[in-house]
Formats: sequence, C-alpha cells, structure tokens
Amino acid sequence: MKLAVLGVGLIGGSIGLAAKRRLETEVVGFDPDRETVERALNLGAVDVVADSVAEAVANADLAFCAAPVYSLPALVAEALEHSGEGTGVSDVGSTKAGLAEAVAGLRGGARFIGGHPLAGAETAGVENSRADLFEGARWFLTPTDTSEGVVFDRLHNFVADIGARPWAIDPVDHDRAMATISHLPHVLANVLASRAAQTLTGDDRRAEVGRSFRDTTRVAGANPSIWGDIFASNADVVADEVDAVIERLGEASRLLREGDADRLSAWQASAAEDREALLDSGHPGGRLFELRLAVENRPGVVAELALALGRAGVNIEDLSLAPASDHRTGAISIWVAGAEEAERATAIVSDLGHGVSAVSGGS
Amino acid sequence: MKLAVLGVGLIGGSIGLAAKRRLETEVVGFDPDRETVERALNLGAVDVVADSVAEAVANADLAFCAAPVYSLPALVAEALEHSGEGTGVSDVGSTKAGLAEAVAGLRGGARFIGGHPLAGAETAGVENSRADLFEGARWFLTPTDTSEGVVFDRLHNFVADIGARPWAIDPVDHDRAMATISHLPHVLANVLASRAAQTLTGDDRRAEVGRSFRDTTRVAGANPSIWGDIFASNADVVADEVDAVIERLGEASRLLREGDADRLSAWQASAAEDREALLDSGHPGGRLFELRLAVENRPGVVAELALALGRAGVNIEDLSLAPASDHRTGAISIWVAGAEEAERATAIVSDLGHGVSAVSGGS
Repeated sequence: MKLAVLGVGLIGGSIGLAAKRRLETEVVGFDPDRETVERALNLGAVDVVADSVAEAVANADLAFCAAPVYSLPALVAEALEHSGEGTGVSDVGSTKAGLAEAVAGLRGGARFIGGHPLAGAETAGVENSRADLFEGARWFLTPTDTSEGVVFDRLHNFVADIGARPWAIDPVDHDRAMATISHLPHVLANVLASRAAQTLTGDDRRAEVGRSFRDTTRVAGANPSIWGDIFASNADVVADEVDAVIERLGEASRLLREGDADRLSAWQASAAEDREALLDSGHPGGRLFELRLAVENRPGVVAELALALGRAGVNIEDLSLAPASDHRTGAISIWVAGAEEAERATAIVSDLGHGVSAVSGGS
Repeated sequence: MKLAVLGVGLIGGSIGLAAKRRLETEVVGFDPDRETVERALNLGAVDVVADSVAEAVANADLAFCAAPVYSLPALVAEALEHSGEGTGVSDVGSTKAGLAEAVAGLRGGARFIGGHPLAGAETAGVENSRADLFEGARWFLTPTDTSEGVVFDRLHNFVADIGARPWAIDPVDHDRAMATISHLPHVLANVLASRAAQTLTGDDRRAEVGRSFRDTTRVAGANPSIWGDIFASNADVVADEVDAVIERLGEASRLLREGDADRLSAWQASAAEDREALLDSGHPGGRLFELRLAVENRPGVVAELALALGRAGVNIEDLSLAPASDHRTGAISIWVAGAEEAERATAIVSDLGHGVSAVSGGS
C-alpha cells in the first residue's frame, strides 16, 4: 500500500508512524516547509520525501491532507487534480461541511471523503508524533451521497487498522455535533477564564483557583491560531450554540435570583441526569456480530449504509467490501458489537432494500 | 485540647480523624442523626458521643459546625449560646457572608470565625472520612473586625496543624471569589450538559463526547441537595456573575458571526493569557505544568505513577483521569509545579514506559 501524507505535523506524522508500525505501507510525505518533512523523515514518519503534492500523490492508494482548516480546500483540490482514479483522498480537519461543499463540484470529488480524528488537538509539531496517537480514538468519516464506496471502504479500514474507531456521519451533522461537544466548551472556557481574570484581583486570586475552575477552563485559549481557524470555519453554528446557552444562562440567572434552594436543587439534579445520559451513551461493548449483505455496486451505497447505521446509533466496529467479479454487485460485511445492535442493524439494512445473507456472532 | 464536632459527615468526621492522628485532642461528636455519630465513634473519628450541642461544646477549645449551609445560622447560634468564653466556634460551609451577618449580632459572636476548607465536595458520608482529607488543601478563614484574635490564632494553628493551608479573607470577598471560581463553573457546566442533552440526539450523541466536553461538564449536577443550598446562599452574587458571562458570550457570539479568523485567534490568545495568569498566581512553587499521558487502562497504573513520582520527590499538584470510551486506554493528566519538576516527572513517567504526549505550562 502506498500512502501520501500532505502536511507532516503532529497528525500527519502520527498517521505515517502508525501506518508504518501496523501496516505494510510506504509513506510519502510532502510539506510546504522542507525542514518539517526532513524531520519527519528522520523520525521515521515518512519513507520518502516528495517535492510537490503531485509527486506525493502519484499512485497513492490514500492521500491524507493534514493541514490547517483554512488551507484544506486548495490542498484537497490539488491532491485530486494530480492523482488518478485509484487514489482516495481524505483530510483531518476539525470541521467538515465547508470542505465537503468546496470539493463537491470538483472533478474527482467522489474520491474525497472527509475525516476528523479526535486526537492531539492540543499539541503540535511532527516531533510530538506518536504511532499510538489514534489508539482507541474516535475518527469521524464524512461521506456524502456521491462518495465512492471503494474509497470509503479503504479509508474506513485504514483508520481501523491504525487503531482508531471510525464513525460515519454527515458533514453538516458532524459540524453541529462538534459545535456542542467541542467548540462551545472552548468558548465557555475562554469566557470563564476572562471573567475570572477581571474579577479576581487581590488575595482571592492568589489563594486558590480550585479544581472545578481548572477543569472548566482547561481548554481556555488552546492553540490560538488553530482555534481561530476552527471557530471561523464553523462560526454560525457555534454562534447559534452560544446564543442558546445565553438563553439558558438567563433562565439560570432568574432562578438564582429567586433564591429557592429546592428549585435550585431540582435544576442541579436535572443537569446531573443530562450529563449522565450523555456520558453513558458513549460506551460500546459486547460481542461482535457480522452482517453480510449483497449490494448493488454503485457509488454511494456504502456511504448510505454507514450513514443510516450511524444515524440510528449503531457503531460499525469493522467493515469489509468485496466487489464481485462482474462489478455490478458486491458483498459487504459489517461488524457491530452486541446482539441488540446486530438486530437493529439488520432491520436498518433491510429497510434500505439490502438482503442480509448472514448474521453471525464472532468474538 | 478538646474539640467539638457538630455534624459528623465527611468533613466533620475527617476533622475528627485528622485531629486525633496529628494532635493530642479529645473529640466530642454530636449529630442530630444518632446512627451517624455512632458510626463516627466506631470509625474512630470521635472519642465521645454527645447527646446535644450543649453537651458537646461544654469546655471545648474549638467547636466546628459541619452541617448543611442552610442550617448553619441556627447551629452556630446554639453552639455560641451553650459554650463559654474559652470556646472558639467555626464552621465549614461553602458560603460565608450570610452566616457572618447572622452571627454578628449574637452574644458571643466575636468567638465565631467562619471557615471553608476546599476539600471533599464530591463525596459525602462519615464512612468516606479520611485523616488526610485536608492535606495541602486551602482552608479559608473569614474573620471580621469584631473577631477575637485568640480565636483566630487557635483556629489558624489548628487548621495548619491538621495539614491544611489556612488563608484569611473577608467573608464578602470570599463569596465573590467563590462565585467566580466555583459556583459559576458549576452553572456553566450545568447549562452545557443540558444544552448538549437537548442538541445531541442521534449518532453524534453516541459517537463521542470528547475530552473538552467531559472536562467542562465534570461538575455538572454535582450533589443536588448540597448545591441547591450553596447556590441559594450566594444567589445574587452568582446571578451577577452569570449576567456578566451572558454579556461576554454575547460579544463572543457577535465575534463569531463576523467570522474573522484573525480576530478569533486574538480572542483565543487573550483567553490563554487570562487563564495562565490565574493559574500561575496560585502556586508559590512556580507555574503549573501539565503532563498528558496515554496509558493502558489497567488496575494499578495510576498508583504506580503516583508512587514513582512520590519516591522521586515530585509533588502531584493535581491529577485527572479520563478513560477512553473503549475502556482499553486512558488519558491521564498530571500537574506539577515548576519547569524543573515537570522535566523530572517527564523522565520518570517515560522510564515507566508511558509516552508523554504533551507538557504544557499553564494550560
């Protein structure tokens, strides 16, 4: 397998290291900064240094664009332009809708599927790269209805093979979820830190900031240049979230001024339930079941399956695609964890019109 | 020395245990719930069970009122009424101004000095008491201009002798600082958890809540009955803080809608400065460094780390553990004070075979 990594910072470098440790892969690296890519070579994160995007992507099976969000549309376009039909292109940016839109009209755009690993956001630099950076980490994949199934298959398996947990999600849904889960907490952390810096000026400031403050503001001011970029690329969605929080804080403020301990207790209890529900829901588990289906071999079919399962909350633990020799049909195996999950997945897949030929429990 | 503990839950019980371990103290315990105080006796947290407040405080050098905030004015009044001139009275409530005001007019009110240890907020019950609960913990003392110096002296020394770090602060300043440092983060955590519970309903919800979300909402919904009480007792001050945050969030929302990455970067950078200034100021040992490591999620790994650091004389200022949702790996953050300490800690952790993914100062 040949892998191209375009931009060898922390994420690009770690993709290279992980691929080389866990797969038989030749990694070609390109970076606009020559010193960076030389460092990546010395660290063993890439095998070959390319002088251009075109050189890097030539004959690559997969090309990862691992550059700042604002530069991704141009980089992805360049990667698509200079690569052939056999090359799948992905990226690792924190927001996905804008990029998907930018790429949609391009020739070869069906070979691009966006991605977003939840790892390493807070450090930077190829020298911090690690082969295990993605171990157990969620890695969102954002296929659209024009995405090529074979690219999704290759990308999904690559991501799983380097130890991450791929999850298909619509690009717009991804950005909305990230606004709540990640971008909004960063905004709140910033505001809390700034408010505290204004309020606490005397001995109270030196005395103790306390653990709840430290936790709640942990991400305040993280990587200004990266985060300016992330906020800008998801600005309206995040602003909507901020506005929704403003409304809820207004309610909290009124509740506080009423000063009724019982009502405040009840409010606190409902927040406890909300948090628990959110954190509980993230736990996978259970025995793996394989669903085998025969599908028509047309663009978008894999993405359609992955999205439908994702929407229903079924996690694809693994996926494999085998086109039949007539290229008109193909066999897809999907592994999910737990009997109940398998049953739901079977129902969803059947609803989409695919026959499930086998459901078998593995280990 | 004779110590009276009025209310033997987690804090009262721990005061008893700490005093008995570190000082020659006879501890008399009283609790409206007879079973609780019997348990405290069995656990060795008290030497003698008293049948009433009056019996407990008779001839005591110090009496600690360790009951819920709403019941403190009556309990402190009772303790003052039934004790003689030689008895200093204190409490351990999370807010101080209202109580100080309630006590100010009482006969013997000069013998009362409020207190607030920053410890143990998240567990409850005498069975969780520990002699070392206050080890290194900040313990606010809130004398007023009518407080008796001899009581302050005795209280200050007692608090230091059981291992805590006393800090005198005006009651009103205390409550304002706590509103920012502690109560406001709790409100923001609640609102964020509730907003996310409303927004995330499908695959985004199950997919991943992420570390920034987990940290920012860690205190959401903590101890509803205790926190209803704390909020109510500091309601207007907290509401003012919430209103100030609403205003700042409004600015953030407008900045986001402008969508200018450079201005958003600058905003992010100023939040970073604010946070750093706040965290730096509280640590005489130097600036805090965070070491983040990815570790295998197996029993004993945290203890092993802590012991190795302890043996090398590196003090862990704070530690947070976040299991990945696959439960096979986890992220551990360890905070140490000072660059040199951070360097030594990094070496020790690396020797144990853990990769340190980030060492960052003040963030």
